Amino acid sequence: MKKIAILGSTGSIGTQALDVIARNRNRFSVSVLSCSRRIEQLCSQIEEFNPELVVVEKEKDAIILSEKYPGTQVDFGEKGLIRAAASKCDMVLNSLMGIRGLIPTYYGLKAGNDIAFANKETLVAGGELITQMAEETGARLLPVDSEHSAIFQCLQGNPEKALRRILLTASGGPFRGYSLEQLEQVTLEQALRHPKWNMGSKITIDSATLMNKGLEVIEAKWLFGVHLDQIEVIVHPQSIVHSAVEYHDGAVIAQMGKPDMRIPISYAFSYPDRLANDFDSLDLFTEGANLTFEKPDPKVFKNIQLAYDASLMGGSYPVVLNGANEVLVQLFLEGKIRFIDIQNTIEKVLNAHKPKYNLELEGILEMDRQAREAALSFL
Amino acid sequence: MKKIAILGSTGSIGTQALDVIARNRNRFSVSVLSCSRRIEQLCSQIEEFNPELVVVEKEKDAIILSEKYPGTQVDFGEKGLIRAAASKCDMVLNSLMGIRGLIPTYYGLKAGNDIAFANKETLVAGGELITQMAEETGARLLPVDSEHSAIFQCLQGNPEKALRRILLTASGGPFRGYSLEQLEQVTLEQALRHPKWNMGSKITIDSATLMNKGLEVIEAKWLFGVHLDQIEVIVHPQSIVHSAVEYHDGAVIAQMGKPDMRIPISYAFSYPDRLANDFDSLDLFTEGANLTFEKPDPKVFKNIQLAYDASLMGGSYPVVLNGANEVLVQLFLEGKIRFIDIQNTIEKVLNAHKPKYNLELEGILEMDRQAREAALSFL
Repeated sequence: MKKIAILGSTGSIGTQALDVIARNRNRFSVSVLSCSRRIEQLCSQIEEFNPELVVVEKEKDAIILSEKYPGTQVDFGEKGLIRAAASKCDMVLNSLMGIRGLIPTYYGLKAGNDIAFANKETLVAGGELITQMAEETGARLLPVDSEHSAIFQCLQGNPEKALRRILLTASGGPFRGYSLEQLEQVTLEQALRHPKWNMGSKITIDSATLMNKGLEVIEAKWLFGVHLDQIEVIVHPQSIVHSAVEYHDGAVIAQMGKPDMRIPISYAFSYPDRLANDFDSLDLFTEGANLTFEKPDPKVFKNIQLAYDASLMGGSYPVVLNGANEVLVQLFLEGKIRFIDIQNTIEKVLNAHKPKYNLELEGILEMDRQAREAALSFL
Repeated sequence: MKKIAILGSTGSIGTQALDVIARNRNRFSVSVLSCSRRIEQLCSQIEEFNPELVVVEKEKDAIILSEKYPGTQVDFGEKGLIRAAASKCDMVLNSLMGIRGLIPTYYGLKAGNDIAFANKETLVAGGELITQMAEETGARLLPVDSEHSAIFQCLQGNPEKALRRILLTASGGPFRGYSLEQLEQVTLEQALRHPKWNMGSKITIDSATLMNKGLEVIEAKWLFGVHLDQIEVIVHPQSIVHSAVEYHDGAVIAQMGKPDMRIPISYAFSYPDRLANDFDSLDLFTEGANLTFEKPDPKVFKNIQLAYDASLMGGSYPVVLNGANEVLVQLFLEGKIRFIDIQNTIEKVLNAHKPKYNLELEGILEMDRQAREAALSFL
């Protein structure tokens, strides 16, 4: 029985992870549930999965839950998340949103806990620190993003040094093929309609701006220890091929499937085993009958190149890329800026940035705060 | 240094295998060369690779070679092939054509030699006997066919019991989309033009009749120990995806690449390692930009279903399927029968066949002889 601590249990990944666990009660149990504000949903989860510890954002919610569930430990805020991540368990699922995942990831790895990882912003901002900590304690980062899970699957059974390139696929988002002029007219409603995956609103906007792919490039660099020039982004609108690896003999191994996040989640939970399920098989005669691949358009969608550049320059640049993006996406979701302002402002913030290097945890968070302020100042 | 014995060194696979070896002289040497009649080409190979033993078909050629290369052992005929297959080496490449590969495979495995396997007819006719012998001695069969190598690559790093289905891709051949009426008009010249792969004439015709895929279904059954209903044939005209495996969690792992047989050959030679080469990478933006998948048409191309049926009925049925096909393809290549006669006659031979079971080596060869006679009697 594998005990799993779930950080972010009421989000899209968290609820799908609980679905995987509910289907495999003989293999998994839930030791921690955590969420920020969806307390009602959390209560149903507590009643269904009976965790040892529950963590919420606010103290007042924690007090209510303590009274409602006297047999369950309840904590709140950042110290609660750290306690959850470092708790005695067999795996932590980090499906927190944004840079908030950094500190729990750090302390989870420090405690030696394997982390099923669905929080790319943490690796974008803190890749060096996080991978060093994992190396120190021997704890593993198991990818949950569909692309990184695909790459991870394609690497199994192959010699590490044989890897030539990672082919990171991208749906291209709802505005694939748009001109810059068309991109300027994009509305929030249009941007929230992702063609294939059902996801949270932040990642949906990131998918539309292609920043999601930029963040994933940086995430892949850290997860798989490759150079940036070994990662190629390939637009694949059907989202059937979830990514691929090219080896130095010319063979390409690809992972394909339906766009169902429960597949990569269950792989992270059961690795190196695979869990049987009764989901429909991929049908190459219908949904997969015509697979196309094309280059992204860097003149219209600037974020991928900005991410490559930030990661290449290193130090605080990727922290700033991510911090600026987080605040700008939030402003766009609130209807306060235009879609095109996201990439244009990130570019300005990066151009004006004075980098710092060898950042520790606090330095990263400080750079993140400065990036958010800088982004606001350029609007 | 890995010593490799090559049976069928002047054919398409044999020459490409020697190209792989020539590019990796620090890893491989050639201990045996064998061919049937292309003596001049064989002499160049002897001079380039300096084998310990050379095997040819005819005694008179053996005598000439003995005089020309006094430092090299020379043998001939079936006993020469058995000697070659069972010789002291690290791997035997069996790239013989047709049922002639059966006896050397058997004795090679009996001697405990790993066999890189490009001779599907042997497994079609003798699958049970051959896989039993491999199990007895612990010698391995490493696939060289691009499809089976792809499947083998997709199985690496995955739990055996997690395999749900094998997705065996087929180019569909030059007559994909033809009606039965159109198939009746096909000429030899048309049938010899394979759209993607450069291969020997027997396998090129088998690709055009789709019998090649039928034989590969049976080969896959034996190589990977699956049931026939776990193998699905998928027509994929671009020949970029060389086959795939679906696991019971819904994930599909596919192997892709350029249609270059040196990739699967080198994988069989170096497994579980992968050899670096300087061949061009697969370009998903041009040659791989549009991948399509469709069902084969069983009403026009009958051979795949005939192969499934023969394998399901077992015993001597697949021996007869293969023997009849071999003689009929030869007659078609000689211009003596029509293209459509191949599948129609195989069907008649199978329908009239009185099966035998639990065949040993001699029994298989006897059934093969009877199948060839039966095929002629139905023309």
